[in-house]
Amino acid sequence: MSQQYTIADYLFDRIAEAGASDIFGVPGDFNLTFLDNIIASDKLRWVGNTNELNAGYAADGYARERGFAAMVTTFGVGELSAINATAGSFAEYAPVLHVVGAPSTALQDAKRRIHHTLGDGVFNHFIKMVEPVTVARAQITPENAASEIDRVIRVILKKHRPGYLLLSPDVAKMPIYPPTTKLDDSQEDITSQSALADFKQALVEFLPNKTTTLMADLMVHRLGLQNQLKALIADTEIPYTTLSWGKTLLDENSERWAGTYAGVASRPVVKDAVENCECLIKIGVQYTDTTTAGFSQNIDQKTVVDLHYERASISGRNFAPIALKDSLQVLHEVMTSGIEVVPKPFCKEMTPHEQNGKDDEAIRQDDLWHIIADHLDHNNLVFSDQGTSYFGISDVRLPEGVTSYGQPMWGSIGYTLPASLGAAIASPNKRSVLLIGDGSALLTVQEIAVMIQERINPVIVLINNDGYTVERAIHGENQRYNDIPRCDWQMMPKAFGATEDNSLLLKVTTAGELKAALKQAAATTDKLVMLEVMADKHDIPPLLADISAALKPKND
Amino acid sequence: MSQQYTIADYLFDRIAEAGASDIFGVPGDFNLTFLDNIIASDKLRWVGNTNELNAGYAADGYARERGFAAMVTTFGVGELSAINATAGSFAEYAPVLHVVGAPSTALQDAKRRIHHTLGDGVFNHFIKMVEPVTVARAQITPENAASEIDRVIRVILKKHRPGYLLLSPDVAKMPIYPPTTKLDDSQEDITSQSALADFKQALVEFLPNKTTTLMADLMVHRLGLQNQLKALIADTEIPYTTLSWGKTLLDENSERWAGTYAGVASRPVVKDAVENCECLIKIGVQYTDTTTAGFSQNIDQKTVVDLHYERASISGRNFAPIALKDSLQVLHEVMTSGIEVVPKPFCKEMTPHEQNGKDDEAIRQDDLWHIIADHLDHNNLVFSDQGTSYFGISDVRLPEGVTSYGQPMWGSIGYTLPASLGAAIASPNKRSVLLIGDGSALLTVQEIAVMIQERINPVIVLINNDGYTVERAIHGENQRYNDIPRCDWQMMPKAFGATEDNSLLLKVTTAGELKAALKQAAATTDKLVMLEVMADKHDIPPLLADISAALKPKND
Repeated sequence: MSQQYTIADYLFDRIAEAGASDIFGVPGDFNLTFLDNIIASDKLRWVGNTNELNAGYAADGYARERGFAAMVTTFGVGELSAINATAGSFAEYAPVLHVVGAPSTALQDAKRRIHHTLGDGVFNHFIKMVEPVTVARAQITPENAASEIDRVIRVILKKHRPGYLLLSPDVAKMPIYPPTTKLDDSQEDITSQSALADFKQALVEFLPNKTTTLMADLMVHRLGLQNQLKALIADTEIPYTTLSWGKTLLDENSERWAGTYAGVASRPVVKDAVENCECLIKIGVQYTDTTTAGFSQNIDQKTVVDLHYERASISGRNFAPIALKDSLQVLHEVMTSGIEVVPKPFCKEMTPHEQNGKDDEAIRQDDLWHIIADHLDHNNLVFSDQGTSYFGISDVRLPEGVTSYGQPMWGSIGYTLPASLGAAIASPNKRSVLLIGDGSALLTVQEIAVMIQERINPVIVLINNDGYTVERAIHGENQRYNDIPRCDWQMMPKAFGATEDNSLLLKVTTAGELKAALKQAAATTDKLVMLEVMADKHDIPPLLADISAALKPKND
Repeated sequence: MSQQYTIADYLFDRIAEAGASDIFGVPGDFNLTFLDNIIASDKLRWVGNTNELNAGYAADGYARERGFAAMVTTFGVGELSAINATAGSFAEYAPVLHVVGAPSTALQDAKRRIHHTLGDGVFNHFIKMVEPVTVARAQITPENAASEIDRVIRVILKKHRPGYLLLSPDVAKMPIYPPTTKLDDSQEDITSQSALADFKQALVEFLPNKTTTLMADLMVHRLGLQNQLKALIADTEIPYTTLSWGKTLLDENSERWAGTYAGVASRPVVKDAVENCECLIKIGVQYTDTTTAGFSQNIDQKTVVDLHYERASISGRNFAPIALKDSLQVLHEVMTSGIEVVPKPFCKEMTPHEQNGKDDEAIRQDDLWHIIADHLDHNNLVFSDQGTSYFGISDVRLPEGVTSYGQPMWGSIGYTLPASLGAAIASPNKRSVLLIGDGSALLTVQEIAVMIQERINPVIVLINNDGYTVERAIHGENQRYNDIPRCDWQMMPKAFGATEDNSLLLKVTTAGELKAALKQAAATTDKLVMLEVMADKHDIPPLLADISAALKPKND
């Protein structure tokens, strides 16, 4: 092997092997020289972002689609700007590797007061700060490069959460040989076969002759088990639901789809299906306040079969360690073994939404999300920001094939704009649809410039409702702190590079105009579409009204 | 006292007492209820920012002008977005209090998986993460509210660095009585009178009959000792200089101004004045790589009288603890006591800059900063971003009265845009002039919306040179990672609310056009001015060429 192969090459080859073909970030003087290795790589493509927080969000969106993402920033200033994105990736299980360019070994050893440091000659402040929001970290040295690069990436892939590598330019350019092992060599199986056998036997005893409902959530997606779950659904007759976090995991157009479960904010049909069955099978469910209207789920633990990350339980009896893929497999075997599985009877409302407002009237939030849903397509990646958009879309039926993404646990407003860019780059055959309010969009708006440069041609549905409506619903309905400066959202894309050749700018105020604009947006696949929807600043979707009422006393 | 006075009122009264009359931030569901206390306060005004990083930068700029600033964000998502700004305030001595809204005590006690957390029921991750970049932190409880609020603010004021308070809405609304003590009660004097007496005696012995130069820097500004320093200069005859970090501390139009010292990148006159004198009096000097061309200062430690934060030294002999204000006072007394102080002779170049390009030719970086300097006014606050702007302006003479701000230690690009907003709000009688490149401006550009809303009417000189020119100077001159998406900088302010009534948009390509535009900008004080200067992407100011040459081998 030629002497030109370096530690940077080793790192970037492993990143490609882990599943990334693009890498996000912002240049800085401590990473510039090893960015050259990315430019020279035939496996990775550099996507420069407009700032580091946006890079972190974009990497998170990419990781959700691809199962792995990587980003590069510079020491101190760069990495700390991105740390909120990393925390979000940790809270919501997005496996992102953050590579940070560090001052050279010689400068660190000399403990100099150099720029991008706190001036105290200490260089491990930032790797310590990132500790609570990463599952593995290392400072790469010539002595540990191969083992630590491999270890950190393997832990990220196994835990589905972010990790961190610190790399100095002088270390990056040192010679090393390419990896001879596969990254996934050490992905050991955590499942105990004894635990699995006992769990299977307990299922055989528990399941028969109980009215049964299935509830799936986030972790099924994060562990990549969607097809296994769909096979279980196909081979059984039970009704099913998801929390909003797991929305679009399962076909929402089937008669067996009970709707989105949200505790006391659930519609009666799904509330009954979940809370009044004799056996509730939970698969990868994580309750959080925003998806359960403040933990208002009223579920008898005796009825619950719970399949989770590395343990399963039946009526509170614990079986561990069992990986979710294995518990799901055993559940499938038992449910199709001829035992008497009884679908929980429920009365599904299959009637389509009846529009509350007229086509020539101003758009209402209790129609808006249904109209948007009606115009989505099976190849859409729908990102809804943690405001009226998230709560609005959670409550409506989406077409099969659509993937819905939100951030209900971390809830960082502005996240979805760069995340939808990242996901679109990860899956170039799909089209991003971004649902976001003006308040949220303003936080990260400059990433529109990269959307245009990269020609990902998303549909941006910008709900212009004059500030932070989701906050108004919680407190301070008319307080000045929930206002934002007045922006011109038709001008916005132009400031970031939109022209008639690459963009379509639309603005609607009535339901009829919205429908026409959504049709035009869907048909215009070769341009970025900015569809500005004028909405009343106090109007909120029904689900948000219920959830904010439930959360309010707990926030005060 | 009425029962309505609450812990939130106590906190905000103390913030006002510490010197802030405005408070920055972004609302979130864990801070909304106590933002009401700000709206109701007659001492504080709420300034909402477009995101939390920008809020942190704005607070930093405000703190530099006022000596104290405060900001409010929400738990996790908000505070972590701002943490890079806090780190910068720590590195560069800006006293900012960061108040973070936390989940209610009941939710924390119940260890629930609520939004804006990592989902692990642990609520002290983020107060720990901020530890390396703050000098004091506390979680406010009903038991500790008064003492911890007072302690944290006092430490901030004493150390001139950021602090952090975590406040739950249920705690915020609890009754308390207003403070009966003054905040500055406990600002004890650290100076040892014995150390001071010994230092004075040593000065009397050391100073006479040595050729002497004075070098001032940052800490004089941060400790608010500018007038004391100016009095010393007025009562003596010695030549003086600053590092670029301390630029505009002293009158740059005097014959005794030797120029800006920058190690090997210094002009010969100032290099000789500093390095070939027999006594170099350093006042509040902090060397960093970017202000000394990679620590290339060639100074004989035997010649140095060093007055610093809490110690002084002569030829390496240490006198501590002595507060800078006291050592400066004693120095003044000794130098004006009749001893023989010998100004270091030097040959000052007082000839004005001769323009290298013609008025009808494209603008060159070796003219640009001189032309800008010629059009500045005594009431300008000049913020130059850490790129060609900072290095360009460092090397030219600025009018007396101008205050120059940069961030050479932390060096976070994009910082100056929101910081210039914050400083302008702190000092409404001064006008912000922002010098920034297109690459840097893109990181934080949405804060222009707040500039327009607040009608601070800055002059934004936007150097449009097609990407990260300061990085090109270091590495990857033509690499794609140093490019940015193409934006329309004339459209940009319009997207964020600019109209003909509140804004003036100008674009220049020649030196002659630049001069005319700067005149128009100076005359148009009632509008935001966006002055876009087209510049070659490879052209850099002479000082940056010297400094990047000096830094380059150390970065690789």
